[in-house]
Amino acid sequence: MSHDVETTEVDRQPLARMDELVSLCARRGFVFPSSDIYGGINGFWDYGPLGVELKNNLKSLWWRRVVRERDDVEGLDSSIVAHPRTWEASGHVESFSDPMVDCRACKRRVRADQRDDAGPCPSREGTSEHDWTEPRDFDLMLRTQIGAAAEGALEAHLRPETCQSIFTDFKRVREAARQKIPFGIAQIGKAFRNEINPRHFTFRSREFEQAELEFFVRDAERASWFEYWLDERVRFHRDLGFGDESLRVREQDKDELAHYCNKAVDIEYRFPFGWQEIEGIHDRGAWDLSRHSEFSGKDLSVTDESTKERYLPAVIETSVGIDRTCLALLAHAYHEETLEGGEARTVLRLNPAVAPIKAAVLPLSKKLAEPAERIARELRREWNVFFDVAGNIGRRYRRQDEIGTPFCVTYDFDSEQDGRVTVRERDGMSQDRIAIAQVRSYLGERLESAF
Amino acid sequence: MSHDVETTEVDRQPLARMDELVSLCARRGFVFPSSDIYGGINGFWDYGPLGVELKNNLKSLWWRRVVRERDDVEGLDSSIVAHPRTWEASGHVESFSDPMVDCRACKRRVRADQRDDAGPCPSREGTSEHDWTEPRDFDLMLRTQIGAAAEGALEAHLRPETCQSIFTDFKRVREAARQKIPFGIAQIGKAFRNEINPRHFTFRSREFEQAELEFFVRDAERASWFEYWLDERVRFHRDLGFGDESLRVREQDKDELAHYCNKAVDIEYRFPFGWQEIEGIHDRGAWDLSRHSEFSGKDLSVTDESTKERYLPAVIETSVGIDRTCLALLAHAYHEETLEGGEARTVLRLNPAVAPIKAAVLPLSKKLAEPAERIARELRREWNVFFDVAGNIGRRYRRQDEIGTPFCVTYDFDSEQDGRVTVRERDGMSQDRIAIAQVRSYLGERLESAF
Repeated sequence: MSHDVETTEVDRQPLARMDELVSLCARRGFVFPSSDIYGGINGFWDYGPLGVELKNNLKSLWWRRVVRERDDVEGLDSSIVAHPRTWEASGHVESFSDPMVDCRACKRRVRADQRDDAGPCPSREGTSEHDWTEPRDFDLMLRTQIGAAAEGALEAHLRPETCQSIFTDFKRVREAARQKIPFGIAQIGKAFRNEINPRHFTFRSREFEQAELEFFVRDAERASWFEYWLDERVRFHRDLGFGDESLRVREQDKDELAHYCNKAVDIEYRFPFGWQEIEGIHDRGAWDLSRHSEFSGKDLSVTDESTKERYLPAVIETSVGIDRTCLALLAHAYHEETLEGGEARTVLRLNPAVAPIKAAVLPLSKKLAEPAERIARELRREWNVFFDVAGNIGRRYRRQDEIGTPFCVTYDFDSEQDGRVTVRERDGMSQDRIAIAQVRSYLGERLESAF
Repeated sequence: MSHDVETTEVDRQPLARMDELVSLCARRGFVFPSSDIYGGINGFWDYGPLGVELKNNLKSLWWRRVVRERDDVEGLDSSIVAHPRTWEASGHVESFSDPMVDCRACKRRVRADQRDDAGPCPSREGTSEHDWTEPRDFDLMLRTQIGAAAEGALEAHLRPETCQSIFTDFKRVREAARQKIPFGIAQIGKAFRNEINPRHFTFRSREFEQAELEFFVRDAERASWFEYWLDERVRFHRDLGFGDESLRVREQDKDELAHYCNKAVDIEYRFPFGWQEIEGIHDRGAWDLSRHSEFSGKDLSVTDESTKERYLPAVIETSVGIDRTCLALLAHAYHEETLEGGEARTVLRLNPAVAPIKAAVLPLSKKLAEPAERIARELRREWNVFFDVAGNIGRRYRRQDEIGTPFCVTYDFDSEQDGRVTVRERDGMSQDRIAIAQVRSYLGERLESAF
């Protein structure tokens, strides 16, 4: 429920680069507006053939590190629509809203704290001042109605965050998985917020994906687990390829903290439009479990093994925006270069672990298509591999550079004789001559070590 | 938009088995009701730690076969909320509804065609007959409102099927991926239907996941591509492990066909509650592209390379229910056995490719935990691996059998000396003594060949 901090650190250069990135994303099929042929729908985006691979790669790296490689974290995949009491207990019904004002003359609606920046009213020639209403709360949750009962449908909400069902399912998951404190429950899924002003491409949208971990600990161990998870999550972003110049952690001031939060540290990425949060680490205390306990009448406490006392565990949360991190990956990777000889190239220097296509197999001539395709088919059992037979080889390299493909495997007229192909690396454009039988392990080593 | 065929082929035995499966799913953390601590919400389910792995495995097998291993299919991940015109063009606003009647006396609501099965009215003692209203259309789409504009929000729907955005994004994806007819666009995602009567566990729910492929072809090639994709999809289900006795294809009669459909074949699985559709193969002709062309005013046609004429491609659709297929996998795998010696065991004979946990590493004694954990850590880089140190070994095997873990790796007191462990296979309970250094490749071969 935190609001992102706006920053003024913006110059023209990065914003122009942002425009080029948005255009590349549409042209090559990473991300584009939903329902584009109907003029789009503000705050909703579709991931195209390359975007869905990038996003899936990021999600599975998160799942691998946070869930699969650990003994002490369990996965979950809960429904987007939950029982309405969930959002009463969580505090969202009461406080997940923004105070808004309307101009009675021109009908414009803005957030109350942005009244003074709204400019003149176009409908009041005399004064040019807006005629604002009193502030009214505007609900940020999307509503829907469920059920076919004659006596009326159930009013429900689309979840504004994925974490609440982790709390409502806490007891069941703990018992099913026979976990003891400390342990965590993690999930990836869609959430919805009726943002008043969606902006910065996919950064602030109305439908988005989160990857959240709620890690349940003893109250006395909150501080040390907070540090542990902050370190872990910073390491994750560094492993994706974000360096010191583009990543920072920022502790929220007391007056920024959401009502359920004792401490919050944002992991921020330096987007072309400024420093912005991509992940938050939160000490939520026992707020959530105590509220759901109270509202459901169910005992969610656990037994302390040594003292045999019952207690409600506290929660350290790590919450990362999948769309935001994808956008950071793309913005970070985007480079325009001038090569020796003066040719320009656009290259996405994506970490190979998240690159949509791991290798392109390119026969130098159409006559060589068949043996080259055999290599592609073999590699495709393991990775997403592109096969492209048409056009001059330089142009084909450029097309792969532009979408971040880390390796191009070229089958040429010598390959039939010497049983070797040329493997070209995207960033340095160095070329290795590799035996065909070794290509799979050559790529495997380089791809596995990438994250 | 098709309605599933109800069947009377139900005897007590399989339904009792179904109850046991539902109970196992809750107890071990496969699937359980959403918002359970608030009494649940009808038609919504959460996948627990084992369920989410099963579901993700199924989705990635589908993606691998339908998208990654093919040159002619592109992936997509579009938003759940689309522009409202989408559902006008698709015909859903007009016809995605069921005619319902209400009893004025007892307020009961049923589908008009099920009036006669409603039993006596509890509120009318004299006649005991219901006092039905005229049939009224009941919208099966979930609605929501988007946006903060003062002049009113945009009325939108949660998609009732994932395929429509494939049609609205058709032109953009085709151009970005430089594909030519025939080719397909595929996506996996959530969809929502306000089912009047959710039932049969996760089989008919209000929030569910689909994996859909829309394959665009010339009109003259509709019949042959229909057969091709029907064969492909049947092969997929057979590879999952469904045999002749539990899988059948059934062509829909003309009067069952949805308005957009020229031909439809259901792939049905024999659930404990009868034969039911898990996937549909549909010849949708050019209905969808022509409607979206008409409603958007955008030209969605392509050029025939030989005649240079423009035409709208036809569509062969394959649409599989992810939740239904997960349920079929669980129902199919569930077995209760009596072992030699009289001991009972419950075993999930899941295809190892979909099993939530690929291997359990079990030290015979707590003293052996450390070297065994090293093996678990090594295997975990590749697979989901469970490590369990507590309890007698027979009971630990039973717990793994019950959740379908194909292999148990036991580290015993000889292992330190001979560098070997015992690998026990779930179904036949045979045991192999394997060198520790070979465990990874031993499991790898067996897991890779499973699908």
